[in-house]
Amino acid sequence: MSKKLTIGLFGFGVVGQGLYDIISTKDLNIEIKKIVIKNPNKDRSLAGSLFTTDAHEILNDPNINTIIELINDADAAYEIVTRALKSGKNVVSANKKMIAEHLDELVKIQNEHGTSLLYEGSVCGSIPIIRNLEEYYDNELLHSISGIFNGSSNFILSKITNEGLDYSVALKQAQDLGFAEKDPTLDVGGYDPKYKLVIAAAHAYGVFVSPEDVLNIGIQNFSIADLQFAQEHHLKVKLVPTAIKLNNKELALYVLPKLVPKSDFLYNVENEYNAVSVKAAFADQQLFYGKGAGGHPTGSAVLSDVAALRYDYRYEYKKLNHVHKLILQNDYVIPLYIRYINEELINNIHFEFISEQHKSNELNYVLGGVKISELILNKEAILRDGAFLAEASALIDK
Amino acid sequence: MSKKLTIGLFGFGVVGQGLYDIISTKDLNIEIKKIVIKNPNKDRSLAGSLFTTDAHEILNDPNINTIIELINDADAAYEIVTRALKSGKNVVSANKKMIAEHLDELVKIQNEHGTSLLYEGSVCGSIPIIRNLEEYYDNELLHSISGIFNGSSNFILSKITNEGLDYSVALKQAQDLGFAEKDPTLDVGGYDPKYKLVIAAAHAYGVFVSPEDVLNIGIQNFSIADLQFAQEHHLKVKLVPTAIKLNNKELALYVLPKLVPKSDFLYNVENEYNAVSVKAAFADQQLFYGKGAGGHPTGSAVLSDVAALRYDYRYEYKKLNHVHKLILQNDYVIPLYIRYINEELINNIHFEFISEQHKSNELNYVLGGVKISELILNKEAILRDGAFLAEASALIDK
Repeated sequence: MSKKLTIGLFGFGVVGQGLYDIISTKDLNIEIKKIVIKNPNKDRSLAGSLFTTDAHEILNDPNINTIIELINDADAAYEIVTRALKSGKNVVSANKKMIAEHLDELVKIQNEHGTSLLYEGSVCGSIPIIRNLEEYYDNELLHSISGIFNGSSNFILSKITNEGLDYSVALKQAQDLGFAEKDPTLDVGGYDPKYKLVIAAAHAYGVFVSPEDVLNIGIQNFSIADLQFAQEHHLKVKLVPTAIKLNNKELALYVLPKLVPKSDFLYNVENEYNAVSVKAAFADQQLFYGKGAGGHPTGSAVLSDVAALRYDYRYEYKKLNHVHKLILQNDYVIPLYIRYINEELINNIHFEFISEQHKSNELNYVLGGVKISELILNKEAILRDGAFLAEASALIDK
Repeated sequence: MSKKLTIGLFGFGVVGQGLYDIISTKDLNIEIKKIVIKNPNKDRSLAGSLFTTDAHEILNDPNINTIIELINDADAAYEIVTRALKSGKNVVSANKKMIAEHLDELVKIQNEHGTSLLYEGSVCGSIPIIRNLEEYYDNELLHSISGIFNGSSNFILSKITNEGLDYSVALKQAQDLGFAEKDPTLDVGGYDPKYKLVIAAAHAYGVFVSPEDVLNIGIQNFSIADLQFAQEHHLKVKLVPTAIKLNNKELALYVLPKLVPKSDFLYNVENEYNAVSVKAAFADQQLFYGKGAGGHPTGSAVLSDVAALRYDYRYEYKKLNHVHKLILQNDYVIPLYIRYINEELINNIHFEFISEQHKSNELNYVLGGVKISELILNKEAILRDGAFLAEASALIDK
């Protein structure tokens, strides 16, 4: 039998309101008792007595057994979630940054206090990837997980590629439509998909990796010259986070733009949609596709977690108990297209191999292989130069 | 903690062998104790003592707590599965025909005897659609479920469409590659995807529908004229089972070829791949894509069920307990393309509306709307005529 959930909700933005909409149309034995908000002066569509600005009204209420945390501030979210889990309340969160940065500790706290933290909504919105990694691929050897994890960047890339919009116009549209976070760097710089990748890797491979150790370069410097290059080769540029098992001891994680061929399913994933591609030893290639952001899609993932808490569902993190732990290997060589402005940049980057070089008044680029660690070292210089790089396995045979 | 499973396996075809491969490479606390086969004279790669032709050696062995049923014969499978469930053994089956025809009774038996029957492998092989409908969409209002559920038909359609093969050559290739069942009618006639649709509908909508009441027309009469028609309209022909909620009381289920536009993700699903498209009120459109057949993909789904039985997992069929039961409505009007040979056929079919008619020496076709019940009545005549029909919502505004 399911138990009754009495909920304290933190945050009433687009996802919080989406969730409230869903819960109020159903008979789920779930009551939202109190909502903590930052700004008490905003107009709300609900009774004022439901809202408070004091977190303690939720955290200290013994009748509230479940916390839903949907605020932007990762540090504040960390305080709320850890306090709640330690005081015996189960928690649902969609805060990818907070979870990615503290997952190791959050798992320990759950185990010590017998509480449950669920966070399906934190990774690719409506796509049930965490639940499937936990429940369905728990005995599968996974070769890789990759995909399109950031709807905002993908929307921008689609608008540039398919409608010929300028980068800045496309970014503005994404923000106006609510697809982009307040600080666009999180999205277009590849931080948001990196947090999601780190969380997915914990469930897929049983490893906790600090986001700081993972390379992320985004689409900030994507230009018309790059678009033309891609189109001449019948490729599309997508921002693709990748986790790949290298051998029985090592794993590589990185977030980079990628030149994607038509034969790849990601080629057809457009606008705000997300997709997760799982390559497994026995199940072979699997793809999950759906909306990665927005109040209702993310709200539906949060609701699914909340509904599962009625049955005391917990992630088991089964792969964490594997004897052979994988470690992050940043010596992995990635085949790249690097379009650059100043020769100095390219001279400073150590290439493992170069398969093509092109210089002209319009376009300078190199096709070659570079270690992840070398890209991490040169990341600032790459972004400063205005250079754009993209994984180019479609063009380079390693 | 997980419990040890001692398994009796029925059938050692491509899926059974795939499963055995997977289990023997892992340390899962699972032992396959005995395998029942039909033909004792075949060469086997495993010790002879593992095999028997006597089902009772498994069914009467009190040490065997779990049955995996992977045989072709639906009637024999029904006997095995019901006997096992009634005698306290849990069962994993991939027999879509048997499950679709007896699901109502199989659920009752599980409830009466406290045993569990899992069958992820029966619907779209490696795609975890049943588990997701059970666990993730259990509180979601689902508008529709459709997709490509039969890898064999899809392989044939891909070969005809992309490589210009003749129907019979493509069918032969599918059979040689092991994608097609022994009797091709099951696949190309749309029976196999119908069984899968009926099973999925039970989990998505809480209804038991008899496969006999569901329309299925396949790709048997797909011709070069139909291919040309589709290509002129930038459409592809796919065999698409559909479950659609019409209102709060009614549901339509049918399997028909469909003219699919480029904007639909199913357009890009080629060869032996399967895809399930779920349209939900809050999660919006979701797509699951993967291999629908073959020893390892289906074996991996069966293994996932077996692994779940170590934790006493059961389907809860939550939507069966909904107060408002949906009923099958065969008065639903489907917009169709019907290419035919004899005028008599078209004169005998009652159209709700006709939006286009074309007659020439090369090609006779009608675009119009016909009720499902009318198609059921005329199914034999349609197949006999050599007529081909396809859902044509891409061409007809209803």
